[in-house]
Amino acid sequence: MSRYWSDFVNGLEPYIPGEQPLDPAVIKLNTNENPYGPSPKSLKAITDCANQQLRLYPCPDSKELKNTIADYYELSPDQIFVGNGSDEVLAHAFNGLFRKTQPVLFPDITYSFYPVFCRLYDISYHQIPLAENFYLQLEQYCRPNGGIIFPNPNAPTGRFLDLNNIENLLREVTNSVVVVDEAYVDFGGASCAALIPNYDNLLVVHTLSKSRSLAGLRIGYAMGSSSLINGLNRVKNSFNSYPLSRIQAAAAVASFKDNTYFENTIKKVVVSRLDLTGELKTLGFEVVPSMANFLLVTHPKVSANSLYERLRANDILVRHFDRPRIDSYIRITVGNNAQNRALTQCLSSIVKSV
Amino acid sequence: MSRYWSDFVNGLEPYIPGEQPLDPAVIKLNTNENPYGPSPKSLKAITDCANQQLRLYPCPDSKELKNTIADYYELSPDQIFVGNGSDEVLAHAFNGLFRKTQPVLFPDITYSFYPVFCRLYDISYHQIPLAENFYLQLEQYCRPNGGIIFPNPNAPTGRFLDLNNIENLLREVTNSVVVVDEAYVDFGGASCAALIPNYDNLLVVHTLSKSRSLAGLRIGYAMGSSSLINGLNRVKNSFNSYPLSRIQAAAAVASFKDNTYFENTIKKVVVSRLDLTGELKTLGFEVVPSMANFLLVTHPKVSANSLYERLRANDILVRHFDRPRIDSYIRITVGNNAQNRALTQCLSSIVKSV
Repeated sequence: MSRYWSDFVNGLEPYIPGEQPLDPAVIKLNTNENPYGPSPKSLKAITDCANQQLRLYPCPDSKELKNTIADYYELSPDQIFVGNGSDEVLAHAFNGLFRKTQPVLFPDITYSFYPVFCRLYDISYHQIPLAENFYLQLEQYCRPNGGIIFPNPNAPTGRFLDLNNIENLLREVTNSVVVVDEAYVDFGGASCAALIPNYDNLLVVHTLSKSRSLAGLRIGYAMGSSSLINGLNRVKNSFNSYPLSRIQAAAAVASFKDNTYFENTIKKVVVSRLDLTGELKTLGFEVVPSMANFLLVTHPKVSANSLYERLRANDILVRHFDRPRIDSYIRITVGNNAQNRALTQCLSSIVKSV
Repeated sequence: MSRYWSDFVNGLEPYIPGEQPLDPAVIKLNTNENPYGPSPKSLKAITDCANQQLRLYPCPDSKELKNTIADYYELSPDQIFVGNGSDEVLAHAFNGLFRKTQPVLFPDITYSFYPVFCRLYDISYHQIPLAENFYLQLEQYCRPNGGIIFPNPNAPTGRFLDLNNIENLLREVTNSVVVVDEAYVDFGGASCAALIPNYDNLLVVHTLSKSRSLAGLRIGYAMGSSSLINGLNRVKNSFNSYPLSRIQAAAAVASFKDNTYFENTIKKVVVSRLDLTGELKTLGFEVVPSMANFLLVTHPKVSANSLYERLRANDILVRHFDRPRIDSYIRITVGNNAQNRALTQCLSSIVKSV
């Protein structure tokens, strides 16, 4: 604490991201990165940008990228907002689109940055418990609220809700903004982007950090009615005129234009998720059905903390959330074949030793 | 306006940056970019990053970059904060370090993003008029305040205050944070970074967009006591865990490690500023003495708006601020020799035609 901080700074409880170890020997299955690299066309776009033009500011509106995303989702460019990672996009959405007159609603088990944003912007919130099997029960969100947000698939559970459920919610909730955080939707889910033309209060948030393998580059975007996007632009233009560098914009455009690479990468991850699910079940794990690139798992005989620590001692990093209801689970990112084999071999010896 | 925006969004008056024309034929002297490109070592660092590792998140604390900047200014890494352009750094400083109990103070003629940040964070402000000759009179800032901010050199005047003046202010103002925005300091000024060990409430903000020719990459940083930096980190970690991509961090590190290139570039810009000042005076312009990479100039016979329009008709972009006290001036970025020659030739024919 310092006498030079604004009053609210001491009350913040900053988000703590998963570790980013520098040792390349570590098998990193803790922050849901893609095991495969970005499209070679994105890499070429980056090297093509490494020239004298970097002395110039980027396009403040990232026009080419907005046009590209709009084409991809059959929307118009004024329905697209882009930012420096989906966390920045979410932050502006909490600030600009959620109201303080009623609590914002989100699940009790979800992305743990949501309550952090609420504290940053002095927004009250109410967490609605998932069902016992980690199902999101959207009918419980039809109550007075200052906004609604949930990931689909949810994190860290991986459970996916189909669009019918979300459309039912949107038919009921018309006075506040509903944000669907689709960070993991490309791994088998269907995007709510298709509902945007019918619901002015729907904001769909995506990232290029997971399915497009660009976590190291920080690019996120939102899709919604032009009036929602206009609100986000007003906040963004009061914060940072140029959130995306020339390189981020160019690499992102190239990624959307290389759909073959994208689809092949997704297929490999989905196949690995199925394989890994089967192998973990064989070892006695209970696996929450996942449509994301991670699995939330628990074992009847070994505690989650012990699994986490023993994997770590073998240079395999996974995530253990010491939070109610999920503290007996670990979350494992789906890796490539070699990483998944190393993981299951290590888990096998841990499980057999008890 | 939309019924889905938070209440404050409609009251925002977003910052409007200078134009970024796509036509390479335009001589762009409107947003104070460096006429010379970034260090070749920064460009190499970027191409070295264009690989599979981009699938991984960057270091959330940008440790290597903080270490590099700390070494450069003989500070410690916990006295360094980094962000996605100095605008993001300034936004977090307004939010986290300025108080709402008294107005924040800044000059009437200054960087026009400051009042925008105040509206974003609901901070009241009071603008203190510069003297007639555009001098910043810091003794007028010794009054109750929620924080003080000014650029040094000031923008868009280019006038520089030496450190004695600033140290005198810091001796008086001990209850609030003083932010010195040194975006242009490398073009001949001396940095206040040297005062940081003696004043816990001093924050010095820099950008790599001007002197280091990396506007297209979006990197800024702040230096101050570890308690100020800790406050900024708390805000940043409640907003976006990873504001700097792997590429931004690597290119910035390489820039600081290529001091020869940096100093040569600065020398060329400073020589051009002196030459251009002389030529403009010969054409009858009044030139505000500048320690930045731009000149604020006025002509007794041609209106600023007319100068702006006639330069524009000749594919030369400068900036004209339609604001009280400076509406008879244009701001011209110092270009390279060819750009400056084209500018003075065009201005010569404009001036001779009246």
